[in-house]
This record gives sequence, C-alpha cells and structure tokens, in this order.
Amino acid sequence: MSDADDFLKVANAGRDAAAVLAPLPRAAKDTALHAVADDLLARAAEIVEANARDVEAARSAGTPDAMIDRLRLDEARVESIARAVRDVAELPDPVGEVIRGSTLPNGLELRQLRVPLGVVGIIYEGRPNVTVDAAALCLKSGNAALLRGSSSAYQSNTVLVRVMQEALAGTEVPAEAVQLVPGTTRESVKHLMRARGLVDVLIPRGGASLINSVVEESTVPVIETGVGNCHVYVDADADLELALEILVNAKAQRPSVCNAAETFLVHAAVADAFVPMALTRLAREGVTVHGDERVAAYGGQSTGVTVVPATEEDFRQEYLSLDIAAAVVGSLEDAVAHIRRYGSAHTDAIVTRSQKAARRFVSLVDSAAVAVNASTRFTDGGEFGFGAEIGISTQKLHARGPMGLPELTSTKWVYTGEGHLRTSGGTVIATGSDAS
Amino acid sequence: MSDADDFLKVANAGRDAAAVLAPLPRAAKDTALHAVADDLLARAAEIVEANARDVEAARSAGTPDAMIDRLRLDEARVESIARAVRDVAELPDPVGEVIRGSTLPNGLELRQLRVPLGVVGIIYEGRPNVTVDAAALCLKSGNAALLRGSSSAYQSNTVLVRVMQEALAGTEVPAEAVQLVPGTTRESVKHLMRARGLVDVLIPRGGASLINSVVEESTVPVIETGVGNCHVYVDADADLELALEILVNAKAQRPSVCNAAETFLVHAAVADAFVPMALTRLAREGVTVHGDERVAAYGGQSTGVTVVPATEEDFRQEYLSLDIAAAVVGSLEDAVAHIRRYGSAHTDAIVTRSQKAARRFVSLVDSAAVAVNASTRFTDGGEFGFGAEIGISTQKLHARGPMGLPELTSTKWVYTGEGHLRTSGGTVIATGSDAS
Repeated sequence: MSDADDFLKVANAGRDAAAVLAPLPRAAKDTALHAVADDLLARAAEIVEANARDVEAARSAGTPDAMIDRLRLDEARVESIARAVRDVAELPDPVGEVIRGSTLPNGLELRQLRVPLGVVGIIYEGRPNVTVDAAALCLKSGNAALLRGSSSAYQSNTVLVRVMQEALAGTEVPAEAVQLVPGTTRESVKHLMRARGLVDVLIPRGGASLINSVVEESTVPVIETGVGNCHVYVDADADLELALEILVNAKAQRPSVCNAAETFLVHAAVADAFVPMALTRLAREGVTVHGDERVAAYGGQSTGVTVVPATEEDFRQEYLSLDIAAAVVGSLEDAVAHIRRYGSAHTDAIVTRSQKAARRFVSLVDSAAVAVNASTRFTDGGEFGFGAEIGISTQKLHARGPMGLPELTSTKWVYTGEGHLRTSGGTVIATGSDAS
Repeated sequence: MSDADDFLKVANAGRDAAAVLAPLPRAAKDTALHAVADDLLARAAEIVEANARDVEAARSAGTPDAMIDRLRLDEARVESIARAVRDVAELPDPVGEVIRGSTLPNGLELRQLRVPLGVVGIIYEGRPNVTVDAAALCLKSGNAALLRGSSSAYQSNTVLVRVMQEALAGTEVPAEAVQLVPGTTRESVKHLMRARGLVDVLIPRGGASLINSVVEESTVPVIETGVGNCHVYVDADADLELALEILVNAKAQRPSVCNAAETFLVHAAVADAFVPMALTRLAREGVTVHGDERVAAYGGQSTGVTVVPATEEDFRQEYLSLDIAAAVVGSLEDAVAHIRRYGSAHTDAIVTRSQKAARRFVSLVDSAAVAVNASTRFTDGGEFGFGAEIGISTQKLHARGPMGLPELTSTKWVYTGEGHLRTSGGTVIATGSDAS
C-alpha cells in the first residue's frame, strides 16, 4: 500500500469518527477525556520509554541540549500532560451554544448553533505534549484530530496516540477521533495539506517557515498562527518610566514566545528623554538594540551602549531572542505606518497618557490585538480567560488572536416552522392533513 | 505596462483606500452611499447607454434571451439599484461592535471589536446590479472592494464603477475603495486569485464551475458560496400533505436559485402513500423526477407519470431547473448518510411530526442550514432579517450560511491597562513617574 493510500485510510477513518463524535453530549466527551488522562498516568512508564528512544536519536544527531530538553518527557511531565487533559474536560462545551436566534416575523423559529468543524489537522514542531493538548482540545470541541508532529518526536507521539486511542476504545468517542498522520517524510505532510474535502481545517503551530510553507502549499483552509513581530510604541504623551517597564517586560520576560516585543518605536518629541534610558536599561537586561540612525545616535559614548545599525530585515524579524529593533518616528501616524509595513499583525502596544492618542492608535492599528499601557505579553488564551489555547491566529478570517474552544467550531442555522412556504407575496403556511 | 503591473497598481490603491476607509464612522460611510445612489440616478442615461453596448454584443454573440434579460439595465432597474444602495445605508454599521469583553481578574479591560476585513475581492457572473450591491456592502462594512464581473457586462460595470468613484470623490471615502479589476481576460482573474497579502478574502458568486476554479487556484483565502444541492426528507412520521406542499415549494417556486430543492428522500414506511401523490403533483407542476429504482416503481402505469432513472450524477447535481432527483430510504439515518454523501451542505429539510426525529436530523445533518417543517427556500439573508446578503457560504470557516454585513468583518482584541506587566508570578502593575 502506498503512502497516499495509508493517508487516505486514516483521513477517511477520521471523517467517520468526526460524524460520530460531533453529536455526542458533553458528558460523553468529558468521560472520554478523563479516560485518556487515567491511561496516560497508568502507562507513563511506557511513554517515558518511547520518549527515551527519541531523545537518544536526537542526541546522536547532535541536537542542542535546549531542544533535547523540550523533547524530553519524564513521569512529572506526563503527569502535567494528564492534568491538562482534565483541565480541558472542565471547560464548557462550545458545541450547541446558541449564538443568535429569533422568531422571524413569519413565525419561523431561527437559531444559529455552534457545531464542530469536523476533521482538524494540526502540524506542529517540538514538544510531544502538543500531541495530547491538541487532541484534547479537538475532542472537547467535537472534532476529530489528525496530528502531524515533528519527526524527532515520532516514537513519543506514536505511543501517546496509541495510549489515547486505547483509552477511547472503552468510551463513546471513537478511537479514530485521534490519529497520527502516518509516516515521517515530507510527503506525509503534503498528503495532509492536499486533503481538501477530507480535512476541514489545518492549523500549523511552529516557526514562520513551517507556517509559510503550509499557507503556500495547502489546498485545505489554513488558520495561520503565531508569528509575532510585536511593537511597543512610546507616544509623545507617554509616562516614560511606565513605558520603560512595559518595554522591558514585553521584550525580556520571555523572549522566545510570539507575544514578546521585537521592535520599539519612540515619538521624536520624547526620544531625547526616552532612548538613552531605554538603551541603558535594555543593555542591563542583556538585550541588544538594533537601531535606526536616530536611535543609534544615542548609542556609543553618550550612553556607553553599543547600538547595532538596523537593516530593513531587522524591522521585519521575529528575533525570539534578547534582540530588539528600534526606531524614532515623527508622529503616531508614522508609528502606525511602520507597524503596518513591517509588523505581523499579532500584538502592538501604545504607551500614552493621552486618551486621544490611545483611541487613534487602537483605531488605526490593524492587528489581532492592540494593547494600551500594557505589555504585549498578555495576548494569550490563558490570560484572556479561555482556559486553553490551540494557537494565536494572525489571520483575519474565522479567528483572530488567541483561539480557544469556540474558535474550533463552525455554526449551523436551524429554522423550524409548521409548513412554512415562501411565495412571491410572502410566507404562506400550508395546512396539512392534521389541520382541524 | 503589463497586465500584472496594472493589477498591482489597482490592488495597492485598494489597500491604501481600505486603510483610510476602515476607521471612518458610520455617518461618513452612509453619506458616501447616498452620494453614490444620487449619482446613479442622475447618470442613469449614461449607464443605460453603456449597458446597451453590452446587450448588443451579447445579442451578436447569439446569447440566449433569458441571459440577455439578466444583463439588461433600463432606467427602472437603475432606480432599483440606487434604492438598494440607500437600503444598505440604513443598515446598522457592523464595525466597532463589541462582541465580547470583560475586565480580567488583573484589571485589564478586554474588548473584542468588529473591524473590516480590508480588501475584499468579488468574482461574479451575470447581472451588473451585483457590481453596485457588492460595492455598497463592502463600503458599509469598511472594506475596499475589488470587483471582477463577467466580461459580458464589462461596459456596464466600467461605467457603474466610474459613476460610483466620481460620487465618492466628493466624500470622505476614497474613490479607490471601489475598483474594477482591469482587463477582461482569464489572466486578470488569476492576478486577483494570487494576490495573497494584498487581498484579504475572495468571494466568488456564480455557478459551481466558477466557484470550484477559484477554490482550486486561489492563494487568497476564499469564502465559497452558493452551490446548493438541497434535500427534502419526508420522514416516516411526516404529515404527508404538508410534506408535499413543502416539497413543491422548495423545488418549483423558484428553481433557478441555490436554496431550491434538488433531491427528495422518502422514508420507506410512507413511500407507498407519498411517492405516488408526489409524482402526480410534481408532474402537474412541470417537474421531471429522476428516481432511484424504488421511486421509479411508482411511475409508469400506476400513476401515469414517467420517472427518469436516476444516476449517481443525478444525486450530485444542482439542476437549477424543473428537475428533481428522488430516492426511497430505509431510515432517517440512511437519509442523513445520503445527504452527507451527495449534498453540498447548503440547506436540508426534514418534514416530520416527531420531535425525536427532528432533533436527530438537526443534530446529524452537517449543513449550513437545516429546516424543520419549512421550505428550503427560507435560507436567505433577506428572510433571516439581515437586510442584505453578499452570498450564502457553504464552507465551515469564518461564515456559514447567508452572509450579511457582520460576515464581512474580522475582529480585533483591545486591552487597556495602567502599566500591566506579565511575570511568572502573575500580573504586576508598574508604577510610572505619575505615581504619587
């Protein structure tokens, strides 16, 4: 059997499972999630053992220690994965929620309900905990999951999915509601990207190159996630000490995540006051500043801080490291133009005391999230109170910003009448044989 | 200058216009819409004259009369187009609506607002009124429109867009908020389909082949619209007279539209009673039935009605004519399986007296709309009370079913703090220099 046949078999099984899973009530899904958590704990040794083979292979391949640490599972990590599954079980079920509804003038009762998307494909890198997290979120939202993890975690992912499937076998949720895309080759990703009609949506989770390649090649609708070139704009009316704390937090509190700041922009009116203090403080935090000419002018002898000259590429980059680009801008509008030009429309912040400037910035910046006098780091499903997050969408269709369970659903209109017919003159209600 | 350069110029002008249009308040947009309506009326003669050239060309090309009638504009039709623009001005502005919001436990004020999508591309066939309708809906929802109509209406569309642009020139809305894609070649459609990053969404409106080709070729996100292979399922517990009226209305009231029924399915328990009366009545309405073997058995001598044997293709087809496919099914579940297999997930109806059957059908049928004891013809933005409709989405992402103004928007999260920083221990509020 060819790779393509293997994939088709899995995808079709996913579709069938999705049809069974979709109408299940919350209780059936929660029971299944707890069964999964129970089995993950009971079979932790088996999971850790499979993971050890991935770790060993990664080590032989000369993988850096930091990446090996991300890959590694021990009993404690398996416990925390199982706990996360139980947390998902505790979240409200988005399916069946009535979003809108009314009785139309002609008496038709109209409701718009949340329904599952169907089959959700997830392509991800790195940590094997995503395998279980993503499966649990899909299952709770009534979707079948088709998972394609990193080939470096293939042994771990295989065992994790097997444990989940065997746990599901004793529940109302079909085991095929959670499946791994077969194979570790690049071809196997392509099958998933071209499964239009079999897979309802693809969510790539990972770095910019992964996401771009999926967006380019997929014929299945994609939800883009996670690339964050976030900005902090220090307005002419900013409280500069507040601005500095927000900037440092946005950049340095956790530089490796998508909601960390990658560029700061300073209004020319406060550049003399702000830039030197920012350079000094950022240097102390270990941050390298890549500045435009006007920022660079504050470096060197006057502050004792070396500013690296910024290129166009610096302003486009998502460093994910202790680096930040910086520029002085002539106006709030120039800051917005810079953000529109170079940003990734993830999260952009303004620090200002001015209501007018805040209103204008919020209105003009076209990003998934706009922060006013707050760190960009708050753009996060957990912080927003969603309880769980499948990713942060940076696209405009379907979902934008942190995606929780409701973002893993579609909708369905239901209208109920008693023989309602549409005519050119308006609604007529047919009288059936029951009429008396 | 090449075609591609022409297109790029137009698309970039659209992006710039979108950035100006997006933050405009409702009053500015409504004023612009009324200015457009005024000028359409004032320049009706010019529009009718341009249209006469399209009509003449179509006639020379041997276009059927029915299609020429769809193409033709006279003063009365221009008046009705202008009236539709004023109706859009009367609708509420979706932009700025707060969809969700709360004050988070840490004091951050969080809101999710509706914002425009940006640049909306619309590819459509046939009637030139769509040019103005689509432009008005985009403008009201704060989006720039890039229109690609049928080449048979090119003269009409060119003048309509020129009139709209010249009307906008006197308003706060940039004239480039409404533009025609340059050219009438197939290449010009391709430019639009490949303008990822310049165009935010593409909405094809027309027949199945147009929609399929856009879905296949576009790298811009697409909202699929309008293909309707709608079903009426007559349950074992149906009031058969009601079922017959609903079936006839769904099929014959206006066969050329996407929410007309294309197949009916009859539970075996009522086939003896229902199929003969349906065949007789449908024949009287001029409808040809393409039946499976069990339906065909009721044709011929017993009813005097000829049933055409149905092929697989008949069950897949959107006839848009006085034809209907028909099958007898063994159970409600078999009806659902048929609908899942052959349907287009537009609208499917059940006729039943049974609450249980209705609940089960609604729960199992995965379509944009499910009708209970009502004609499929009610799946329509106007009937649902939206006031206007840009199309009926048959996809699951972003919008499903009739799309009104809110479906032409995305969202933006805004959070406001007073120096909120995220730390591993929770939120810390920075004290700035204003603290006292």
